[in-house]
Amino acid sequence: MGWARKEKLTLDFWQKERLKIWYLAVCDSDPAKKDILAEKYPDVPFYDNYIDMLASGDVDAIITCVPHYLHPKMGIEALKRDIHALVEKPAGVYTKQVRELNEFAATKPDLTFGIMFNQRTNPLYQKVKEIVDNGEIGKIRRTNWIITTWWRPQGYYDQSAWRATWESEGGGVLVNQAPHQIDLLQWICGMPKKVYSNVKYGYQRNIAVEDEVTTLLDYGNGATGVFITCTHDVMGTDRFEILGDKGKIVVDESKKVTIKRLHKSESEMSDNISWADAAKIFRGASMDDVYSEEVIEFESVWGAQHLAVLENFAANIVDGSPLLAPGSDGINGVALANAIHLSSWLGREVELPIDEELYLAELNKKVEEEKVII
Amino acid sequence: MGWARKEKLTLDFWQKERLKIWYLAVCDSDPAKKDILAEKYPDVPFYDNYIDMLASGDVDAIITCVPHYLHPKMGIEALKRDIHALVEKPAGVYTKQVRELNEFAATKPDLTFGIMFNQRTNPLYQKVKEIVDNGEIGKIRRTNWIITTWWRPQGYYDQSAWRATWESEGGGVLVNQAPHQIDLLQWICGMPKKVYSNVKYGYQRNIAVEDEVTTLLDYGNGATGVFITCTHDVMGTDRFEILGDKGKIVVDESKKVTIKRLHKSESEMSDNISWADAAKIFRGASMDDVYSEEVIEFESVWGAQHLAVLENFAANIVDGSPLLAPGSDGINGVALANAIHLSSWLGREVELPIDEELYLAELNKKVEEEKVII
Repeated sequence: MGWARKEKLTLDFWQKERLKIWYLAVCDSDPAKKDILAEKYPDVPFYDNYIDMLASGDVDAIITCVPHYLHPKMGIEALKRDIHALVEKPAGVYTKQVRELNEFAATKPDLTFGIMFNQRTNPLYQKVKEIVDNGEIGKIRRTNWIITTWWRPQGYYDQSAWRATWESEGGGVLVNQAPHQIDLLQWICGMPKKVYSNVKYGYQRNIAVEDEVTTLLDYGNGATGVFITCTHDVMGTDRFEILGDKGKIVVDESKKVTIKRLHKSESEMSDNISWADAAKIFRGASMDDVYSEEVIEFESVWGAQHLAVLENFAANIVDGSPLLAPGSDGINGVALANAIHLSSWLGREVELPIDEELYLAELNKKVEEEKVII
Repeated sequence: MGWARKEKLTLDFWQKERLKIWYLAVCDSDPAKKDILAEKYPDVPFYDNYIDMLASGDVDAIITCVPHYLHPKMGIEALKRDIHALVEKPAGVYTKQVRELNEFAATKPDLTFGIMFNQRTNPLYQKVKEIVDNGEIGKIRRTNWIITTWWRPQGYYDQSAWRATWESEGGGVLVNQAPHQIDLLQWICGMPKKVYSNVKYGYQRNIAVEDEVTTLLDYGNGATGVFITCTHDVMGTDRFEILGDKGKIVVDESKKVTIKRLHKSESEMSDNISWADAAKIFRGASMDDVYSEEVIEFESVWGAQHLAVLENFAANIVDGSPLLAPGSDGINGVALANAIHLSSWLGREVELPIDEELYLAELNKKVEEEKVII
């Protein structure tokens, strides 16, 4: 549902690979798209109303390529009619609506409900998650992701009135570009308990929403984190560091993973070494006695794994293969993005889960303020 | 004044190089040191009371190698007697006492008043400062320093009762290890206007003071920053990134400086490129049309520049050469460290300059609480 340039890829893929499994249909409220589609894909039925499509009996599963606010509603309408649903990221704009989607989906356990977190299929991040899950770097003490490779010039925002508004998009870099990393961060390292943020709205771009985010995370067990993103760094940095009590992982440019594994946990080292002996280690210049280092290089595959998510989604329907990105996981990234917004609006640290009603009320204020400015 | 292991170096230096300029004297309240000194340096007068030494007429200049709390008082007593003063870092524990020192020093403009910020003599940081001061990376948008190479095992803290207590040291990593980087950060990038911090006290070490610090800086003009330090990362990271609207500097391990200089400012690029053309640049994989890159490697010289500060201090006295680290600069690092403590104690963002009386009252509370625990 919804057919933009990005979805061309998806459509071609389904046409070539998956027609044997599923019959394909497209729905879009823009009548111009009907003609384009009729020419390019004459066999594919077109609907201008998604409820009609869902009721037609033509479709077994849908993908929601529509504005973020609509994902939960369309997801529910599909599941209601026993149609499998793959929602695009983010799962929605505010957790209240995503919670409704999740709660409804829970009543339909036989249906497949997924989310397009294509970066979860990236072998690099799968490897990082495996190392953390295996306890190879021990208990996490600190996370740190600077992800400023989301450069967008003013021309990007000026493409359509829909972009970068509170009313239509519900936010900026947090809801449009960075949801991948926000999901990966919580997927690999877990959800923080508290969030404090410094968010700049329309800082380097003429937009109402945020183009710069600096966030301090507190995991509630002593561990802390920092998450930084923006759309105004044309020489963007992508550096993700995870410190554990038994090791450290540094991911550079989503390509190179450096893993340092301590021979003994840091706590054990601290408890059993004199300062004089510690100083000797550092003077010795070699850290081989302290930790081993492994470096793994990956091909860069940002944005190339939509197909892998589709395959995994289809496989779950067909043979029950486990979903890499269950739809219900989508609420975590939305909760984190909402907490980051809310902290900046209130000017203080907020606890998770945040007050959903308060968030929605504050979001609606932004929508109203924006109308006045326009 | 004060003679610990570290000062051996200083003493040897003065003995070998500077006796022609100055006569040397040592003062320490520990009588055991008198005997050691008499054996090693029989010609050097020893005083067990610093006021006696200052009044003796034997000394023209002093260095305060004493607990942090005493730096301002001893500095004032020296200057009062027209004796030049080089204070160790930090200038003091709280800004109120450092302000008194600065105010008194201002009444003695003919005397040399310096501070042992030896890292200011590091050619790497001098180069970084030069690039920023020249405007080569434009107006600063973000600063980010992860400096966790200050590993200290429990044995370090257990060496003496003086260490890592509120009463004697007045803090942990912020007042003992990280003042170098706190000074360099403000020296190169300026002072922030607001600070929010998440500080862990006795997190991974059995101490009353902080061993982990995560700080969010706001420069009041849109620019933000992050400063992270701790003493429990044996595989410590030292990565300093400065983003400007015309370039970016990344310093790795205090050894390698990578400078990216944009051909046009980011704002100009953003205003004059369509999204389609921007996408082409990224697909082209080469960023040569966007920026040039320079990499400069330096020898690691952490901790090796005390002598350079001493020489600069002496040169200022002798021939008026400009001071690299004027004593009055010391208050900035103390103000920043105080703001970081205070934000964590109050659980909210604080503005600089902070309320000095409030800080001192809160610090004194910590001193009292610590006594009860002991």
